[in-house]
Parts: sequence; C-alpha cells; structure tokens
Amino acid sequence: MSRFWSSIVSELEPYVPGEQPKLASLIKLNTNENPYGPSPKALAAMSGEVSDTLRLYPDPNAEALKSAIAEHFQITQQQVFVGNGSDEVLAHVFQGLLKQEKPILFPDITYSFYPVYCGLYCVDYEQVPLTDTFEIDTEDYGRPNGGIIFPNPNAPTGRLMPLEAIEHLLKRTKDSVVVVDEAYIDFGGETAISLIDRYPNLLVIQTFSKSRSLAGLRVGFAVGHPELIDGLERIKNSFNSYPLDRFAIAGAVAAIQDQAYFDETRTKIISTRESLVTELETLGFSIIPSAANFVFVCHDDCDAKELSQKLRNKDIIVRHFGQDRIQQFLRITVGTDAECKALVDALTVIVGDLAKVK
Amino acid sequence: MSRFWSSIVSELEPYVPGEQPKLASLIKLNTNENPYGPSPKALAAMSGEVSDTLRLYPDPNAEALKSAIAEHFQITQQQVFVGNGSDEVLAHVFQGLLKQEKPILFPDITYSFYPVYCGLYCVDYEQVPLTDTFEIDTEDYGRPNGGIIFPNPNAPTGRLMPLEAIEHLLKRTKDSVVVVDEAYIDFGGETAISLIDRYPNLLVIQTFSKSRSLAGLRVGFAVGHPELIDGLERIKNSFNSYPLDRFAIAGAVAAIQDQAYFDETRTKIISTRESLVTELETLGFSIIPSAANFVFVCHDDCDAKELSQKLRNKDIIVRHFGQDRIQQFLRITVGTDAECKALVDALTVIVGDLAKVK
Repeated sequence: MSRFWSSIVSELEPYVPGEQPKLASLIKLNTNENPYGPSPKALAAMSGEVSDTLRLYPDPNAEALKSAIAEHFQITQQQVFVGNGSDEVLAHVFQGLLKQEKPILFPDITYSFYPVYCGLYCVDYEQVPLTDTFEIDTEDYGRPNGGIIFPNPNAPTGRLMPLEAIEHLLKRTKDSVVVVDEAYIDFGGETAISLIDRYPNLLVIQTFSKSRSLAGLRVGFAVGHPELIDGLERIKNSFNSYPLDRFAIAGAVAAIQDQAYFDETRTKIISTRESLVTELETLGFSIIPSAANFVFVCHDDCDAKELSQKLRNKDIIVRHFGQDRIQQFLRITVGTDAECKALVDALTVIVGDLAKVK
Repeated sequence: MSRFWSSIVSELEPYVPGEQPKLASLIKLNTNENPYGPSPKALAAMSGEVSDTLRLYPDPNAEALKSAIAEHFQITQQQVFVGNGSDEVLAHVFQGLLKQEKPILFPDITYSFYPVYCGLYCVDYEQVPLTDTFEIDTEDYGRPNGGIIFPNPNAPTGRLMPLEAIEHLLKRTKDSVVVVDEAYIDFGGETAISLIDRYPNLLVIQTFSKSRSLAGLRVGFAVGHPELIDGLERIKNSFNSYPLDRFAIAGAVAAIQDQAYFDETRTKIISTRESLVTELETLGFSIIPSAANFVFVCHDDCDAKELSQKLRNKDIIVRHFGQDRIQQFLRITVGTDAECKALVDALTVIVGDLAKVK
C-alpha cells in the first residue's frame, strides 16, 4: 500500500480471473472459452483492418456494431450499448445504474466480479442465497432494493432461469433496474431481450467471448430502454471515448451476421455437453442441469480440490472455487469431443484410484 | 435523464472527441493522428493474430507488452502499467491516485478530458491559469494539492515544458502525485521517464496513438514507481481483467520494437511542422512554439471560427475550441507535406478573401 493511493484503492479486493496458461499443450477447460475458432467471416473482416487506417481513431460510437446488433435482435440502435468486453459494460452498469441508496441484490453463488464492482464504486449490496438446489427463487428478491443483477444461466452453476420467472420478477420490481447477464444464454436459454420493450428497467448484457468465440477480441454489449443506454453512454463518454478498437468493431459485426456458423458451433457444444454429462454421471458425478458451455459437478467420494489438482497433473485445467457451499464442486468448460474424451479418460483413472485408497 | 440513473450520471458533462468523419475524401487535421501508417512490423504482428486463438482470452497482465515497454525504456516490468488507450489509463489514475482530500491542480487550458474525469470520480480540482504566453509556470503549483497533472507538450497549445522545470516541480511537490501526460512527447520533447527512479510520486503516461500511428488500436501506458503501478493494477483488476485484446498486445509490442520506423516517421513530421510554421507565419498567423504533431495558431485579422468553417467548406477539418482565452486559435494537426500544402493553399485564398472584405 502507498500513501499516494486514493482511499478506495487499499480496500479493493480485485477479481482474480481463471488462469491463462502459457503452455499450449494443456487442455484448457477452466475459463469457458469456445473450443471452436471464430467465424471465418469474422477472421476475414479483422484481416481487412490490418492496414494504414489503424493510424486513425475508430468510430467513438461504434455505430456499425450497434447497427448490426440492433438488426440482429430487431431493436433500435438507441437500445444498444457496446463496450470493451462485457466486464467493462458491467463496470459502467454498476457505476451508472446500480449505485443507489438502497442495497442491490444478487445471488450468494454467482459471478464473483459483482462484489468487486461494488467495492470499486462503493455500491451497497446484499447477497441472496440460492436454494439448496442452486436455483434463484424470485420470491427472495421482493425486498426493497437499489437493483437486481444475476447471470442467466447463472455462473458457475450453469442453471437456467426460465423467461417466465424473469418476467415474474420484473412485474414485481418496478422501481429499480433488473440486469440479466446473459454471457452463456446461447448454449441453452432464451434471451430476455424480447422483454425490453415492456420493461423500461430491464437491461440485458451479452458478450462475444463465448458463443461467438471472440474472448481474445473483447466485445460485450447491453440492450435496454434508450434511457438506460443513455445513462451508460454518459459514463462511457466520461471514461474513454474509444473503448472499441478497429478490429473489435469489424470482427464483431461480421461475427453477429454469420448466423449459420453461430448455430453450427453452439449446436456442437450443446451436443458435446449432453454426452459429457452422461459420461460424468456414469463416473459417479452429480451435475447441476446446465444451459451453459460448462458443467458444475461434484462427486460424493472425491474431494473437488484434489480432483482438480490430479487433473492438472495430467495437463487438464478445470476451475475450482474455494467459496462456501461450492467447495466440493468443479466448473468444467465443455471443450471439443476429443478434449472431453481426454477429460473423462483422466477422471476414470483418478476416480478409480481414489476409490481404491478408501 | 432517468429515474434509474445513479445520482452521478445526470451531473456528468461527458468529453466530446474531435469529429471522426465518414468521408474519406476529407483532409483530416483535427484529431492529431499520425499521417503515416503504423510500422510494417506492427501490421505483420497483428496479421498473425487473425486466427482461431482469438477464441481464447488474452493475457490479462499483457506481460509481453509490459516487457517490451520496460526493455525500451530500460526500466522494470513492475514500473509499467498498460491500458486500453491512454484515456483509460488516465481514468484509472484519476480514480486511483488523484482522488484525494485536497483539490488537484491542472492548467486552465489543457486536455479537456481532465475536468470530465474529475466529474466522473468526484475529484476536487482547481484550474491554474497558463501565463499570457500559454506557459505553465511551476511557481503557480506551490499551493497544497492532492496531485498535479498536465500534458507535456501541453495540448492544445503544443508548448513544451523543459525537463528541468519538471524536476523543479517534483523537488517542491513531495506529498502528492505528479502526472506528466506525454501523448505528444516524441515530436520534440524529452521524456520524464528518466526521473521516475528518483521521484516515487512521478507518473508518466504515454500512448501508441500518436508517434506510433496506432490510434485505431487503443493502447496507452503509464510508467512510475512500482507502488503507483500497483495502485493502478488494483483498480484495473476491479474494473476489467482483460482491457487489451490480442491485436493490441501484439501490435504494440512490434511497434515499440521498431525504432527505425518510429524515428523515420517522427522526423518527417517534425520537418513538415517546421515548414508549415514558416508558411503560416508568411500568411500572417502567430504560432505558439510547438513540440507536438500539431500547431496552435491565431490570425490577427481573421476570426478563428470563421477560418475553420471556411476550411471545412474546402474539405479540410481543423479543430476550434470555444473555450475562453483560446477562441481565436485553431489547432491544426501536422499532416503529410501534401496535406499541409493543401491547407496552406486553402488558407492563402481564405485569408486573402477576408482581407479584401475589410
């Protein structure tokens, strides 16, 4: 700590992202990346940006991207906000919409960046326990609040909240913003974007990092009533005029326009997930029903942390969280069929060995 | 304004960047971009990133880039912070280092984003008038303060503060952070990075947008004592784990390593600037001595706003600020020799016509 820091800095507990190992030989199932590359059309569009025009600033308003997103969801450009990854979008949402007098509400088990944003912007919050089966019960969110935020499907559980439950929550929450963070929605859920015209306090956030295979490009967006979007624009234009570079704008436009590739890859991932679930169940794992590109699993006879270390010894990385209630769970990204087979083969040996010891 | 906004949002007066016109035929001398493209080696490095690895997150710590910057300046990686353009770096600096009990100080005529950041993070500030000749007088910064920030060369004046004056200021300012924003330093000044080992409260900020011709890529960095850098890392890791995408890291590494191209292009720009100054003086303009890739000029007989409009009619864009004290000035980016010739030709006609009217 330094005497030159602002008072807030020493109080922060920064977010710790999943490991990004430098060894290419590892099977990396720890940060929910897509096992398939981006759309070839997106790659071609980014190639086109490798030119002398990089000397010029990008469009500060990223209109080409807003327009492509608006067209994709049949909404208007004024209902779209874009940012440097959905993490940046979320940061602006916490500062611009969720910093209120009343505490905001989010699940006790959820994206662990939420409490970090609260620390950064001094946002008061209450964590609402998931049910015993890791479900969000909308009845628990009836108390007065400054806003509600949750991922759908939730992370790291993968559990989906049906659209009807979200609408039920919106009907009861008229005085604060409800943020649905849909990073994983394309792997088995239905987006709440269809509800934004009826609920001016609904903000839906999505990312190009998962279902569009562009984690390395950093593009996220929010969709909601133009007044919510305008609030976010005011924050963004007081923070950084040009958050999206020329590659990000061009690549994301082409990616969202390539529906065929998007459908092909997400269908493959969903299919691999279902096979993986069956195999893991055979090995004695319990699995939370997943609508995401990862599964959240535990094993009655094997300690999760130990399993994760033994997988690591076999060059397979999965994610273990030390947090209460989920210490016996592993979050495993759905890779290619081959990667999932390697995982199951490794777990077969590891679980077998652990059973012998007992 | 919306009832769902945080209280800060409606009070913001967001920054307005210079126009980014969609017409390619314009001569664009309004946002201080480099007239030459990026290093061919940087272009090649970015081409190499167009691949399936874009599905993977970038290195959250951008170590390759920190290492390249450290090597370039003969400092350590722990003295380097990187961000999504120097505007993002500046935002974190205002939140993490300049938000203090005492007001911070910056010139009355300077980068107009500074008061905007103060609004975003509720930073108290006092603007210190430049002298009549638009110089920063270090004697004016002796009062108690929560920090001092200024660009060097200053913008939009282009005037350089010699390194001795910066050191004089540092000797008298021991209890708060001094931030030197060197966006334009490579066009005629000497960086203050040589002073960071002796002054633990000195932070120097640079960008790849100007002298490295990569405004479209969004990369900036800060250099200073590891404790200052650590404070910025804590903010960054509470805001966005991955602010730099794969193109930004690869392109910036190659750009900073290509010293020959850097020297060639900045020498050309400096040479063009000196010719342009001579020509503008011949036309009756007064010019603040510039160490930047722009000139700040006024004409006794011609209104600056009118000049800017008449240039616009001839498809040449320059920047006019409506602010007090500089309403009669234009900020003109140094373009190629051909662009500057077109500018001088246009001004010759415009100034001649205005003289006839009088």
